[in-house]
Amino acid sequence: MSRQKARRESQLLDAATHLFREKGYHNTSMQDLADALGIQKASLYYYVESKEELLLRLLERGSSLLGARIDQIYAADLPPVEKLRRVLENHAMTVMEHLNLISVYIQEYRRLPPERLGEVLAERKHYEQVLMRILEDGIASGDFRPVNVKIVMLGVLGMLNWVHQWFSPAGELSPQEIATILTDLVLRGVLAGSGEGRD
Amino acid sequence: MSRQKARRESQLLDAATHLFREKGYHNTSMQDLADALGIQKASLYYYVESKEELLLRLLERGSSLLGARIDQIYAADLPPVEKLRRVLENHAMTVMEHLNLISVYIQEYRRLPPERLGEVLAERKHYEQVLMRILEDGIASGDFRPVNVKIVMLGVLGMLNWVHQWFSPAGELSPQEIATILTDLVLRGVLAGSGEGRD
Repeated sequence: MSRQKARRESQLLDAATHLFREKGYHNTSMQDLADALGIQKASLYYYVESKEELLLRLLERGSSLLGARIDQIYAADLPPVEKLRRVLENHAMTVMEHLNLISVYIQEYRRLPPERLGEVLAERKHYEQVLMRILEDGIASGDFRPVNVKIVMLGVLGMLNWVHQWFSPAGELSPQEIATILTDLVLRGVLAGSGEGRD
Repeated sequence: MSRQKARRESQLLDAATHLFREKGYHNTSMQDLADALGIQKASLYYYVESKEELLLRLLERGSSLLGARIDQIYAADLPPVEKLRRVLENHAMTVMEHLNLISVYIQEYRRLPPERLGEVLAERKHYEQVLMRILEDGIASGDFRPVNVKIVMLGVLGMLNWVHQWFSPAGELSPQEIATILTDLVLRGVLAGSGEGRD
């Protein structure tokens, strides 16, 4: 790929991220994208076959970003508590640092038929499974209380994904501060012997 | 309102809930709604002015359901832990028991301009404030550790709202079991003296 083509493609993905977040995938036309890049609509098709393909590439980007560190963290020689902390902080930070991209990832992935989402769904499934394995390891080691790992995993990812709905870079707290508060909440929630729980 | 008109309106709201969830608000036409009810499209306008008005009524319904018990729970003579448990369980149960309506509420409310959402936004703000007040009361009484109540409130509502994305009535666990798991996670997460937190 020529350097110019690569740069254009990167600009196109950035423009699509911005427009899909702002107006929604459905309401963004190829014409809008061409206008944002200052090129002819016909030229767009040199870089991307369709709006669908563009969305797919953004979903792959978002999915790779979220999953980038999961295997490394799992493989590290660390206690389950520390692995869980790192996965959760990393997830929260990724959502806040790539707010537009992750918002598109979270809100628009159902626009594509599951058969086009192969890679993206496989990565997500892998991510969920590693997270559950960390919880299981922590239960086995006695660090965590015996929670239902699937429901806790779903609940925790929901909390962290939802951050894209309310996080504002202009807010009082930094992404790191927010990530720490949410991570602490979950860690204390699963630690063995932590409080009385239901009384 | 005649009894027939009331019945028709109720059928219309149910059909809209179903279609907006299934196809999305954007992709549902007044014609689709008329077809679902087996009436002429022109007759629809006897019951509702526009698709926008229909969405607004659904958002009001969802908002009322979620907020229905919050004031009663807050006013009850109960310790903060118990109030928090009831609010969270009630929220989770409402999401799961009114899955289609709450999904529409959560996913589509941004389709309407804020100035049309007056009541809905006011109710949501009130709900969030009462939840923060319960957290503050618990911190003041020493039951909860001194958390950032705003971030915890946003995190917890995110976790509970997100349930609409993954809950399946055909799943292994009942709504009550799921609500209990998620509520316990949060309660243990905020209880004072619960575990070591960050080590």
